[in-house]
Amino acid sequence: MEYLTEIKVRGYHADFYGHVNNARYLEFFEEDRWATLESKIDLKKWAKQGIIFLVVNINVNYRLAVPVGETLVATTTIEKIGNRSVVLNQQILIKESKKVAADALITFVIADKTGRAVAMEGEMLQEIEKLRSSGTV
Amino acid sequence: MEYLTEIKVRGYHADFYGHVNNARYLEFFEEDRWATLESKIDLKKWAKQGIIFLVVNINVNYRLAVPVGETLVATTTIEKIGNRSVVLNQQILIKESKKVAADALITFVIADKTGRAVAMEGEMLQEIEKLRSSGTV
Amino acid sequence: MEYLTEIKVRGYHADFYGHVNNARYLEFFEEDRWATLESKIDLKKWAKQGIIFLVVNINVNYRLAVPVGETLVATTTIEKIGNRSVVLNQQILIKESKKVAADALITFVIADKTGRAVAMEGEMLQEIEKLRSSGTV
Amino acid sequence: MEYLTEIKVRGYHADFYGHVNNARYLEFFEEDRWATLESKIDLKKWAKQGIIFLVVNINVNYRLAVPVGETLVATTTIEKIGNRSVVLNQQILIKESKKVAADALITFVIADKTGRAVAMEGEMLQEIEKLRSSGTV
Repeated sequence: MEYLTEIKVRGYHADFYGHVNNARYLEFFEEDRWATLESKIDLKKWAKQGIIFLVVNINVNYRLAVPVGETLVATTTIEKIGNRSVVLNQQILIKESKKVAADALITFVIADKTGRAVAMEGEMLQEIEKLRSSGTV
Repeated sequence: MEYLTEIKVRGYHADFYGHVNNARYLEFFEEDRWATLESKIDLKKWAKQGIIFLVVNINVNYRLAVPVGETLVATTTIEKIGNRSVVLNQQILIKESKKVAADALITFVIADKTGRAVAMEGEMLQEIEKLRSSGTV
Repeated sequence: MEYLTEIKVRGYHADFYGHVNNARYLEFFEEDRWATLESKIDLKKWAKQGIIFLVVNINVNYRLAVPVGETLVATTTIEKIGNRSVVLNQQILIKESKKVAADALITFVIADKTGRAVAMEGEMLQEIEKLRSSGTV
Repeated sequence: MEYLTEIKVRGYHADFYGHVNNARYLEFFEEDRWATLESKIDLKKWAKQGIIFLVVNINVNYRLAVPVGETLVATTTIEKIGNRSVVLNQQILIKESKKVAADALITFVIADKTGRAVAMEGEMLQEIEKLRSSGTV
């Protein structure tokens, strides 16, 4: 299996305890979300229409303290597509052992120019459904 | 009410959309956790014994998109003290309107030198109970 | 002397070596630049006209390794006003000892809506000159 | 030519103006320094001896405002090896056009366990000289 996102943990990712900082994980998750979304969806087309992806909840479990020097990989899959929101399931794994360092459920809505969440239907739903397809993600 | 943490939102806190980035909120929450903990607990004493606070879950709701120029304040209270973990309830508020921009439940355990979670009892429990006390937090 | 920016160094500011990370200092400097600018200049007025401050060079000396727990303060003064650029002199000091942890010369230009640097003259020059005035900065 | 570091600019790298933030560039530079150093030098061997690389000056020119969506690459070469310090020359380029977005001179010293800079000589000098060798860096 190939991963879209691979991160070698550096000293600047770590905090005082020598482990990857909690806030950094959110950046790693965000990196893989964008990599995954753009590998399946024409994001520019949606951006032109003023459609944006708005994260409304992040529920993250920190499972392992990852030291500097370790290499991490990330995965992003669909957990659930609701009427007005999508839940992604993301994992950060230690590349070698495949042990889960952190996992997260990320809930986002799709908002239009007026800032209001729009229903997941029609062409938008079809686009989002593409994230279910197998492959690297 | 006085707040331990006050943050004026700057351009470098914002992302492409001009709003405070998701990962930044975790830093704001972390800032207020430390400010709150050190206002009530002698952290250095615990550090000397090799005791560390280990966040195991963060569940954060992003409720408002906060623009650059706004001033935010933070609060940290005890949600629940369990046998082996503590849940904090944190909020980031817009200072003027007191509207909640983001809130989070943060679960942490207390680990000893060997990295294992220790039970919340005795002196440790007494220290943690101090976080319940009223005042600025 | 009062400082506009005061930062207690936390674990998340530090890197693997337990010291404030190089990139973090740039955020501390940026924080104090904004605090200083907005204490003297009506930034919103300029923003409305599409005027932005564009940093073109940062030359920073890291002089002391600052450990977690230390409190830092920052200063921002005018080093030189040129025809098309301004050089600021910034310092990050350890609050207690007043030892310099890092200092920097920051060169910025003022750009208009078309992205081109504009000459420092007229009303703009008067505004920038305000940064010379004594007080907290 | 192959690059050790390639970064796709995401929304979370950008600031309010929609461009890569100044402090982020320092992380990109740091990323490529570590990638370059570890591709030529046995860093673990030196770490075991308590030898650390200490950045004492960063002089960075911001030449282009880089928008979200652009792909950047980085280069790190030796500018000068002195008696007690090394100067690296680093560039961040837009991958497609090879235009320089930012460049920097980074001065570091090598410090021993006591925190004092050590002279660049003997085995240490040989290791550092490896960074001159051609290849990807």
